[in-house]
Amino acid sequence: MQPEHLRAEIARAAARIEGHVRRTPVTQAELPGLGAPVELKLEQLQHSGSFKARGAFNTLLAGGIPPAGIVAASGGNHGAAVAFAAARLGIPAQVFVPEIAGPAKIALIRESGARLTVVPGAYAEALAAAQAFEAETGAVQIHAYDAPATVAGQGTLAREWETQGLSADTVLIAVGGGGLIAGALGWFGSARKVVAVEPEQAATLRNALLHGPDTETDVSGIAANALGARRIGRIAYGLATALDTTVVTVPDDAIAKAQRLLWRGMRQLVEPGGTTALAALVSGAYRPAPGERVAVLVCGGNIAPDPLADG
Amino acid sequence: MQPEHLRAEIARAAARIEGHVRRTPVTQAELPGLGAPVELKLEQLQHSGSFKARGAFNTLLAGGIPPAGIVAASGGNHGAAVAFAAARLGIPAQVFVPEIAGPAKIALIRESGARLTVVPGAYAEALAAAQAFEAETGAVQIHAYDAPATVAGQGTLAREWETQGLSADTVLIAVGGGGLIAGALGWFGSARKVVAVEPEQAATLRNALLHGPDTETDVSGIAANALGARRIGRIAYGLATALDTTVVTVPDDAIAKAQRLLWRGMRQLVEPGGTTALAALVSGAYRPAPGERVAVLVCGGNIAPDPLADG
Repeated sequence: MQPEHLRAEIARAAARIEGHVRRTPVTQAELPGLGAPVELKLEQLQHSGSFKARGAFNTLLAGGIPPAGIVAASGGNHGAAVAFAAARLGIPAQVFVPEIAGPAKIALIRESGARLTVVPGAYAEALAAAQAFEAETGAVQIHAYDAPATVAGQGTLAREWETQGLSADTVLIAVGGGGLIAGALGWFGSARKVVAVEPEQAATLRNALLHGPDTETDVSGIAANALGARRIGRIAYGLATALDTTVVTVPDDAIAKAQRLLWRGMRQLVEPGGTTALAALVSGAYRPAPGERVAVLVCGGNIAPDPLADG
Repeated sequence: MQPEHLRAEIARAAARIEGHVRRTPVTQAELPGLGAPVELKLEQLQHSGSFKARGAFNTLLAGGIPPAGIVAASGGNHGAAVAFAAARLGIPAQVFVPEIAGPAKIALIRESGARLTVVPGAYAEALAAAQAFEAETGAVQIHAYDAPATVAGQGTLAREWETQGLSADTVLIAVGGGGLIAGALGWFGSARKVVAVEPEQAATLRNALLHGPDTETDVSGIAANALGARRIGRIAYGLATALDTTVVTVPDDAIAKAQRLLWRGMRQLVEPGGTTALAALVSGAYRPAPGERVAVLVCGGNIAPDPLADG
């Protein structure tokens, strides 16, 4: 997919999902130990707690959903976003959640109103159940990160940020399967420097750029729940290659430190994956040049355990 | 204090504290069960976690601080804000914190760099220690809510919100001792309807309006740590009387429900006092007329226990 084509798709997606997604706030933050202030976009305020709602709404609104609706196998942010968007649009949704997803994410999906089945075991069992459901009913599965409609939806975030006055030379964005970074690369092209930030324990894009697009990466660590795709999406890989995207990796302790910094310094409590981009500044994995203006995307807030779980 | 005079003081305060406080983000929120979307200002992203930083900076920057610096007796948001502002400005600060304030707030004050003494017992013991320190050293105490410089500083929040495009007819604001509501009334005057929201178990302004300005109110409940002033400030009382301000009260369960709504609906984790204004919509204590545009101030986020306390 060419960046120019994707940019047009993103503009169309923005028109399509307007009124369905939130225009999330931006702010300027001077945080202890970071030096110059950074621009932040607080995308964890998005419906369902992450940017994933953008791609989900764009996919469902683009049409082509059969009467049987959609099915997803996910206990994570993608499952929550798909369930939320489907419920809002009145599209039947069935989500198979692995038991190991934990009560916080399961509750989030349940609250959306989607039909939810908790499957004993891990992701593979939930996926098998979803595939059986798909075969039986004709419902469609929605890809979490490597479909054009998903990428274009996530790209609306970059476009929106510009309408909110983004001034940074450089934008730091966390990478899991690559849907979000692909959207950002598609929108910004080479007009701004996009830095891809991955956990050391889930460096899927870095490994693909080193060893080829089909490289499988073992994933673990505190952000694996959100960023733990084992293979990078084709769309993200193509764009990162074409645009020669900078990739940096961060250790889990820097992610945890960034999480504490956001909470103590500005009362934003986010999940580890949501603060992985900030960890690149905290750890020094990315060191801005003097005068370089930097922006950081905070992309998800569905922390576990839920701090108000007993409320 | 006349509203016109206070408005000019607020404009001066805004110039004085610019660059020292954060311009906190605003957003539009459609939340389950609330009907029409509301405008929110997320002031818990302010330095030290609450609007109190505005009044503290304005007071310290207005001059007249003796070489001995300042002293405060507070385990709450005021103490944290004064400690933060003094540390930033290089003004010596000594804070006496009652042991019952709990580890989260004590840690917040300690991190500011202020000299901190934890006093066994409750607020009265911390106050006695602060008064002894004041007499001995010549340091000055800073009033938490009933001094013109404090009120003018808090009023900068209302002014800032208007520069950010506030469109609401009606603004809901929580009341403790009245510094924040006084600032808002001083800025908005009668141009917008300001609704004062108090916990049923700390209805200090309501009781003063019913029974006279010196009425003492017994305070308790989940928001008492932030909103539990026993007597309303004179400035707030005067403005609320002059402007015939609407006061509503909310039960603790509505405050807790509003807290969950903000967390689950938009991943903002705030303290009970910070979400008391929203509780007026949640509980129906304030019911907007059809077409009435409503804004809600989220004023503080220093929740206890700290969800990352062991991090």
